[in-house]
Amino acid sequence: MSDPFATTRSQFALPEGVTYLDGNSLGPLPVAVAERMRASLDDEWGERLIRGWNDCGWLDAPKRIGNRLAPLLGAAPDTIMLGDTLSLRIYQALGAALALHPRRRIVLSDTGNFPSDLYMAEALLQQKAQGHSLRCVAPEAVADHLDEEIACLLLTHVDYRSGRLHDMRSLTERAHAHGIPVVWDLAHSAGAVELDLAGCDVDFAAGCTYKYLNGGPGSPAFVYVAPRLLEHADSPFHGWLGHRAPFAFDARWHAAEGIEAWRVGTPPVLALAALDAALDVWEQVDMAQVRTRAVELSALFIDAVEAQCTTLSLASPRDPGARGSQVSFHCSHGDAVMQALIAEHGVIGDFRAPDLLRFGITPLYLDASDVRHAVACLAEVLTRESWRKPCYQRSRAVT
Amino acid sequence: MSDPFATTRSQFALPEGVTYLDGNSLGPLPVAVAERMRASLDDEWGERLIRGWNDCGWLDAPKRIGNRLAPLLGAAPDTIMLGDTLSLRIYQALGAALALHPRRRIVLSDTGNFPSDLYMAEALLQQKAQGHSLRCVAPEAVADHLDEEIACLLLTHVDYRSGRLHDMRSLTERAHAHGIPVVWDLAHSAGAVELDLAGCDVDFAAGCTYKYLNGGPGSPAFVYVAPRLLEHADSPFHGWLGHRAPFAFDARWHAAEGIEAWRVGTPPVLALAALDAALDVWEQVDMAQVRTRAVELSALFIDAVEAQCTTLSLASPRDPGARGSQVSFHCSHGDAVMQALIAEHGVIGDFRAPDLLRFGITPLYLDASDVRHAVACLAEVLTRESWRKPCYQRSRAVT
Repeated sequence: MSDPFATTRSQFALPEGVTYLDGNSLGPLPVAVAERMRASLDDEWGERLIRGWNDCGWLDAPKRIGNRLAPLLGAAPDTIMLGDTLSLRIYQALGAALALHPRRRIVLSDTGNFPSDLYMAEALLQQKAQGHSLRCVAPEAVADHLDEEIACLLLTHVDYRSGRLHDMRSLTERAHAHGIPVVWDLAHSAGAVELDLAGCDVDFAAGCTYKYLNGGPGSPAFVYVAPRLLEHADSPFHGWLGHRAPFAFDARWHAAEGIEAWRVGTPPVLALAALDAALDVWEQVDMAQVRTRAVELSALFIDAVEAQCTTLSLASPRDPGARGSQVSFHCSHGDAVMQALIAEHGVIGDFRAPDLLRFGITPLYLDASDVRHAVACLAEVLTRESWRKPCYQRSRAVT
Repeated sequence: MSDPFATTRSQFALPEGVTYLDGNSLGPLPVAVAERMRASLDDEWGERLIRGWNDCGWLDAPKRIGNRLAPLLGAAPDTIMLGDTLSLRIYQALGAALALHPRRRIVLSDTGNFPSDLYMAEALLQQKAQGHSLRCVAPEAVADHLDEEIACLLLTHVDYRSGRLHDMRSLTERAHAHGIPVVWDLAHSAGAVELDLAGCDVDFAAGCTYKYLNGGPGSPAFVYVAPRLLEHADSPFHGWLGHRAPFAFDARWHAAEGIEAWRVGTPPVLALAALDAALDVWEQVDMAQVRTRAVELSALFIDAVEAQCTTLSLASPRDPGARGSQVSFHCSHGDAVMQALIAEHGVIGDFRAPDLLRFGITPLYLDASDVRHAVACLAEVLTRESWRKPCYQRSRAVT
């Protein structure tokens, strides 16, 4: 079988002289987006005007494009709704999850969760003002804190700093054993690792599309709702287009059927068009191929860094099965090192306080030679005398 | 003084053969959007990649472009935040307003409000589960129902069907006399009528940018917060980028200063770029000029319809001071009439049940000859024998 990645790289408009290992933060521009956007502007908005809502599939786009995402998430058709931001989709999923257990009062999460998931959760609990509280435990202790007090388990699947991967299947199963619905944040998972939302019987999930899915800066988020919950879970947002008959302009809310009820406001048509074009590449590869290649490239990256950059220490799990598609290293003066790596070599990763160099491994447009080049440049930067001075930041463990 | 509208029309990409009177629903494509979008894709996302967040002003865009809107709304700088949808911005504003009055339990609105404002309000009250209720009275009775029981007054300024305009200054003042904060929905007001949010001492407002502001299908919404409330009103959404120091990744929420706290998730960069380009035209005209011209064109339209289309009756207020920038007529078989008008003459308005033909009057790209042409075409369509058959829809009054 030919290499499925032989033709994917040319579908991204990567700048000359750049080696891009930050696709875990913002994916690069897919070549197909320009023409799709031109068509959206000229042929759709410009030419069809208001008629575009019917003629150009605008109204249907959030579900239709959600269905293109479904295979990447191991989700059944018509379980994903696109639109809004990840923060709001977390709020929406958590609100619905809490309504399933009106007598339970604790939302369980972990200290490795992305902070804004916790902010949104606390904001929701504050709105509810019914004595709910948020309990955050260490990521490895989550399973031990599942009991009949817990109203909902809210976790981010892949840690944004270390890439540490939760065991979605096991934790979901253990939560269900106590009657606890789970909300998974897939920000660093969608397009990065194999997912099986249906097979794991996940209740709710939310994610963004601008990282490994290359949908563009601020591209629309998504929410996933298990088929068994679509009949009775109630979205805490009752938006116009989630109504059964939006153009009847009823004074009362009547939820649309299925995932349609999870729409909120008017779909972001231009942003959805860019995302739609970005997803074309997934017609040529599948998630298993991407994951296999990412694991190979990550191993190559880790081995090369450990051989050539001996002052760095691995902050990510060494076991590829316990790691998403990013690799992080502790690095004294990490912020300055990353700035130099970008400015002098065009090797783009990112820095996360207090001392992490973070690199996204994205096989759609990165190959082994890119990985070797990136490590050689990093090793070169690290030879500088200046990094040997003491660092004002104390390195501390990152889970 | 030269006609300020002599050069604005050519800045819109209107299709040949179309007379567009539906800018109250979706504004047409501004010519400048194509180049701005190309630059956003190629020069920003494509070339700068993750660095665009700093280099290309992406992070700052929601407030910076909000400040371009401010003069159109009579708002002070740094009081408007762009992003998300109108539904969510209504939820956000209402949530903050209710927190100002923890002991009051009634949200007052009117039966002419856009239904999804009521849906979102009810969804919020349901989340709160503290005995709040929504009370809807007739639009003309709102002032009589303001008392110390009311926690918040939630109104849409311009009725989406009839164009009936609430008196923002008087109602806000009367509400304040009872200590009631007001949330104004400006969906059909922004870019349509003169607004003076600061002068009327409005507490909160929200609106969309895809109608009279021509930002494109599903372009970002905005929220307005009075300067006096920015210090202590609490947004019910605590999003990452509303945090005082998003990149510190604190486990706890600390609101950013001022309107920054009202950001929620990642800004929709491409959609904001389109909106930014669409706002360029407002550098050449001001809202007072647009309103004056819209009133003239509306009078011309009403007079011509009443002279030439005698089976129609005006559904909008006749007094221009009591009407937004749209004109509606009751019309038996209205849906079919509008379809024929569009299909046969390229005159695009829209239909709202049960019997309304609705036309947006938008001087940036419509002039007196367009208005005369539209009415002549409407008169021609109405001569058909088929419209004389009884209509299955009973006409009823629309306020």
